[in-house]
Amino acid sequence: MIGIFDSGIGGLTIVKEFFKYLPKYQIIYFGDTARLPYGTKSPNLIKKWSKEIVKFLIKTGAKVVIIACHTSSAWAADFLKKEFPRLPIFEIITPGIKQAIKITKNKKIGIIGSPGTIKSGAHRKKLLGFNSTLKIYSQPCPLFVPLVEEGWINRPETKSIAEEYLSPLKKKGIDTLILACTHYPLLKNTISKITGKKIKIINPAKDLAIEFKNFLEKNKKVKKHLKKGKNHHFFVSDEPYNFKILSKMCLGKNINAKLVNSF
Amino acid sequence: MIGIFDSGIGGLTIVKEFFKYLPKYQIIYFGDTARLPYGTKSPNLIKKWSKEIVKFLIKTGAKVVIIACHTSSAWAADFLKKEFPRLPIFEIITPGIKQAIKITKNKKIGIIGSPGTIKSGAHRKKLLGFNSTLKIYSQPCPLFVPLVEEGWINRPETKSIAEEYLSPLKKKGIDTLILACTHYPLLKNTISKITGKKIKIINPAKDLAIEFKNFLEKNKKVKKHLKKGKNHHFFVSDEPYNFKILSKMCLGKNINAKLVNSF
Repeated sequence: MIGIFDSGIGGLTIVKEFFKYLPKYQIIYFGDTARLPYGTKSPNLIKKWSKEIVKFLIKTGAKVVIIACHTSSAWAADFLKKEFPRLPIFEIITPGIKQAIKITKNKKIGIIGSPGTIKSGAHRKKLLGFNSTLKIYSQPCPLFVPLVEEGWINRPETKSIAEEYLSPLKKKGIDTLILACTHYPLLKNTISKITGKKIKIINPAKDLAIEFKNFLEKNKKVKKHLKKGKNHHFFVSDEPYNFKILSKMCLGKNINAKLVNSF
Repeated sequence: MIGIFDSGIGGLTIVKEFFKYLPKYQIIYFGDTARLPYGTKSPNLIKKWSKEIVKFLIKTGAKVVIIACHTSSAWAADFLKKEFPRLPIFEIITPGIKQAIKITKNKKIGIIGSPGTIKSGAHRKKLLGFNSTLKIYSQPCPLFVPLVEEGWINRPETKSIAEEYLSPLKKKGIDTLILACTHYPLLKNTISKITGKKIKIINPAKDLAIEFKNFLEKNKKVKKHLKKGKNHHFFVSDEPYNFKILSKMCLGKNINAKLVNSF
C-alpha cells in the first residue's frame, strides 16, 4: 500500500490528488491529530514523531511512504531516508520546487508556509541548488491553518489576513507562489483574488502525485508490491477536531478514521 | 514549591497573579509546548497528559498543584484528584464561577473558551450546581489563541473576529462574562470594547490566586511545606513558539525555560 502521513487532516488534500492521478492503488493514511500542529514545533520533535509514524505505516503494510506534511518534509525527510534506507520515501517540497522553476519567467518565487517550514529554509536551499540566480521571498502564514480548520474560507477576516501576509510578496514582484502547507490549497480562491492573474500559484500536492506516478512507471518492482483496490485505511492519533468539515473540504467526502492509541 | 501547569505558555497569566498575591513562594511551572494546544484534543489524552505532568511536578518538588489550563481543569481535575488523593490540587474553573455568581445581577452569565473547554460543559454544570435558575450562554473562540500567539492583540481583524464571537452573547443580555482560557486576559481590552461597560469581565486567574492564598491561611501544614524565595523554575516540553513575545505579554518580562525531553 501507499503510506501517506501528515500532522493532521490537511494531508487529505494530497490524498485527493493521489485518488485523481493514481486511482488504482490502496492508501494508508496517518494523521498525527494528537500532537498537531507541527508548524510551530521544533525540528527534533518533528524527526522523532515522523520516525514513529513511518514505523507504524510499515507495520501496517506500507511499501512506500509519502510525507504529506511540509514541515515534516522540511525537517525530517533526509533523516527518514537515512533511518529507512530501503524504503522509497517521497517528500512534498521538491516536486513544487521543480514546478516553480519550470514556470517562473522573472525568476522571482514566493513561498508561503507554516513558521516551521519557512524557518527551515528547505525551499530556499533546494531552489538555489537548482538555480542560484533565483530571487526567493518567503512568508510564514501562521493564522491560515486555524482559519481553514474553522471553515472560515471566504470570510472577510480571512481575506484581510491573507492581504496582510501576501502584500509583501506582491510588492517584491514574484510571478510564482508555492503553497507550502497542506491546508493552503483550500484557500486558493482567496489567495488568487489577492495575487491576481499575473502570479501563478503552485499546489505541490498535484506535482507530487504526478512525480510519484512517473516513479512507479520506471520502478516496476515497487509498483508490483503496491496493493490495488478501494479499501483505503485512515488512522489518527486522536479524535480529530472538526473532522467532518475538514475531511469534506479536503477530500470532497466524509471518511471513517480509526483511532490509534499508541502515539 | 507551588506547581503550576498549562498546555503551553498562556498559563503564565496565572503565574502573574500568583506573583502578585503570593509573592513569597517559589513556583515550578510546566508548559506542555510539545503537545499544545489542548483545546481541540480529546478528554482521554488531556487526562493522560495531565497525569504525566503532575507526576513530573511532584518529582521536581511541588507540594501543591495548580491546573492553569482551563481545558485540563475541565476534563482532568476530578480524575487527577482521584489519582493523587493526598496532593492538594486546584483548578481554575471554580474560582471564576464563584466570582461570576457573586457579581451577576440579572443571572445571565456568558462563558468564552476553547472548543474543548466549552464542549466539556464544566462551567455550565458547576454554575447550575450553585444556582439552577441561572441562564448560561457559552461560545467557543478557537481563533483567539492563535491570534494572541501572533501578538495580534489590537489588530482590526482581531476586533472583527471578537465581534463575531461576542455578539451572540451580547444579544442574550449577559451581564457577566468569564474568560475561560489562559490567553483571553491578554485580549481583555479588545473584548471589553465590544462588550461595553454593562458586562463585567471575570479573569479567573485572579480569583484562583486569591482562593489559594485563603486556603494557605487555613492550612498551615501545607503552607509550612512550600518553599519561599524568588528561585522559580520554568519547564517546557518543546522549544516554545514565539516565546519571548508571549512570556513578555503574559508575565511582563522575559524568563528562561528549561527543556524537558521526556514528554
